Amino acid sequence: MKSWVDGCEQSDFSIYNLPFGIFSTEGSKKKVGIALGDYVIDLSKVAEAGLIEEKQNVFTRAVLNPFIEEGKTYTKSIREKIQTLYSDNSFSDNTSLKEALIPLKKVQMHMPVEVKNYTDFYSSKEHATNVGSMFRDPENALLENWKHLPVGYHGRASSIIVSGKNIHRPKGQLKPADGPPVFGPSKLLDFELEMAFITFKGKPLGQSISTAEADDYIFGFCLFNDWSARDIQKWEYVPLGPFLGKSFASSISPWIVTIEALEPFRMKGETQEPEVLDYLKYTGLKNIDITLEVFLDNTNCNSKIASSNYKYMYWNYAQQLAHHTCNGCNIMAGDMMASGTISGPNRENYGSMLELSWKGTNPVVLEDGDQRKFLQDGDTLSMKGYAEKDGVRVGFGEVKTKVLPAL
Amino acid sequence: MKSWVDGCEQSDFSIYNLPFGIFSTEGSKKKVGIALGDYVIDLSKVAEAGLIEEKQNVFTRAVLNPFIEEGKTYTKSIREKIQTLYSDNSFSDNTSLKEALIPLKKVQMHMPVEVKNYTDFYSSKEHATNVGSMFRDPENALLENWKHLPVGYHGRASSIIVSGKNIHRPKGQLKPADGPPVFGPSKLLDFELEMAFITFKGKPLGQSISTAEADDYIFGFCLFNDWSARDIQKWEYVPLGPFLGKSFASSISPWIVTIEALEPFRMKGETQEPEVLDYLKYTGLKNIDITLEVFLDNTNCNSKIASSNYKYMYWNYAQQLAHHTCNGCNIMAGDMMASGTISGPNRENYGSMLELSWKGTNPVVLEDGDQRKFLQDGDTLSMKGYAEKDGVRVGFGEVKTKVLPAL
Repeated sequence: MKSWVDGCEQSDFSIYNLPFGIFSTEGSKKKVGIALGDYVIDLSKVAEAGLIEEKQNVFTRAVLNPFIEEGKTYTKSIREKIQTLYSDNSFSDNTSLKEALIPLKKVQMHMPVEVKNYTDFYSSKEHATNVGSMFRDPENALLENWKHLPVGYHGRASSIIVSGKNIHRPKGQLKPADGPPVFGPSKLLDFELEMAFITFKGKPLGQSISTAEADDYIFGFCLFNDWSARDIQKWEYVPLGPFLGKSFASSISPWIVTIEALEPFRMKGETQEPEVLDYLKYTGLKNIDITLEVFLDNTNCNSKIASSNYKYMYWNYAQQLAHHTCNGCNIMAGDMMASGTISGPNRENYGSMLELSWKGTNPVVLEDGDQRKFLQDGDTLSMKGYAEKDGVRVGFGEVKTKVLPAL
Repeated sequence: MKSWVDGCEQSDFSIYNLPFGIFSTEGSKKKVGIALGDYVIDLSKVAEAGLIEEKQNVFTRAVLNPFIEEGKTYTKSIREKIQTLYSDNSFSDNTSLKEALIPLKKVQMHMPVEVKNYTDFYSSKEHATNVGSMFRDPENALLENWKHLPVGYHGRASSIIVSGKNIHRPKGQLKPADGPPVFGPSKLLDFELEMAFITFKGKPLGQSISTAEADDYIFGFCLFNDWSARDIQKWEYVPLGPFLGKSFASSISPWIVTIEALEPFRMKGETQEPEVLDYLKYTGLKNIDITLEVFLDNTNCNSKIASSNYKYMYWNYAQQLAHHTCNGCNIMAGDMMASGTISGPNRENYGSMLELSWKGTNPVVLEDGDQRKFLQDGDTLSMKGYAEKDGVRVGFGEVKTKVLPAL
């Protein structure tokens, strides 16, 4: 398959991808678009020309939620139709289709969804092992429950922001080893390399979604930076878990890559031992081979500081969703569930400064020789992600956020 | 002040109260109402008659969020105007005002707000001490951070339901002492007696709300039953906090009592020792004297099993909101923040079965002699709340939920 739009084959946004997002051009309202190469396809224009079906004005809303609420049969049909229209050469002279293409550099991207509920998992064995080794016991790094269930917690939905929006260093209670707590800017600001999936509307409260049904309830995926203030978190988190050490912000990439676009990159996950309970068993390929990269720009140079892969997940997305709903918890169109930090086997695959600098004992050296234990004001942190196989590329673009001083 | 509507003086919904809710009558759409005595005032009817100002059709929406989004100046003016209209005898013959009154028994109540983000605190010293004594050490029941900050965690918004809706006993992973985890219905189902406040839209991400500003950002309060499956919670909660042991459901009372209506019942809170950090200091009266009662109906009799009071909060609502936003976390119109279980000094004041039965060692005896360590299928749990002083009564009605067997 090849698009008649020039230069999109090697792009993250190839004709095989076609992710959904919310864009605006100068002075215009927010609209739904699909990325293709260096362009955004304005879906409302394609619908106006009668080439795709628009339900309930979903293409001129400020978020994707109304579109997602229409369900997978509809969202999938729109993507497939766009794929046909922009790859079939018989449409290459269609004025409406050409006019619907807006250069990416002319648009501003916005939050793709109003995040209805946000959950963060803790599903990378390497990450949980690293954290357990640092803060507990390297010989018994994983807590007893970790291999029996995908540990997770509810997070803050309101402070999830889109790539390009800066954050301020958070303030909070910090506890010196030798005295009472003080209030001030976090000294241990960190990123966490994660991916998140966005859901369709689920079943009524009380019912569960099985691992076999999970794919039907997932719209797509994005990159997710789970900003963390390690010092705030350390003091507050017992006994009820992370709170203000996380809730000041999380950043996401603006394009939601559909689960259908990721189909060719599925692969087998790690064998789970001990055997999991029946409701967590699954068949088929539920891990996905997505290369993930982290860059730190200290204003002098942009250094790649880590590379990992979504395939490292011990608990896959289907198990996460089955676990989340096994108690009857309902899900909504536009819920977001993040993976937890995705670390791989070696130091260069670690997904946080905490692990890369091993609690600050082994600083990360940037390309200009500058060193970092944690993040400094002025640093820009970006993450990229893409899947590639047999000449087919499906990418996520990036999530990029600059750290400004505390207010 | 006295209403010309008969029989509302001794009601929870006196002319001094005027709480907001969402109601429907048979075959009609959801609308915004105010409770007065045995009636609901249909605000859209009062607005149609030109007696109050309706902005953006807020009175015919399915949730209070659009109304709350208009801000406190507006919401407060509507309540004050209704108070005048229904207390001033010169309006007692007004046909529109009389026609706007619908008997409470003819309406169905619905979720008053779409809960945008839900946070649960842990702010009763008696409750935290009881739990710490049972599971850790009676000599050091409170963890080191507890008296320095209002411990809290993010909860699940999607599964918050209104009084009258039944729940199914949740299923989940349970860990027997002598073997691997099993999957099945919770055996230790519990309630938690709480109150919650609902917020107005806050400041932009990165900014904080002080204790002095807190009242300006609070719309009102409701009763809150934070359903808990103790066995699921116990196995899952390390290290990231409660998750599926809570997210299967929380129940709320349908009427939101405004913070203005609670003004006469303010009182001094417990002296906080050690002294709190500056951002948690406050002036004025930030505790509220609200009597709370819990009833358990085992289908044979309805027994009062506990009575407590919102005045027992160690961390008050203003401190909770200031703490929640001290890291720059933003709040939205329709966020809900619950108090945590409100226990008082003596056994009869404990706000959960866990405490009342002291981990199942001291069963609660019902009026017919039946005993309960935790809740059984078929039990109906209800909570009531009211403030009363100098002949003025402001009540919350009730939150009532029946436990059905696991699906």
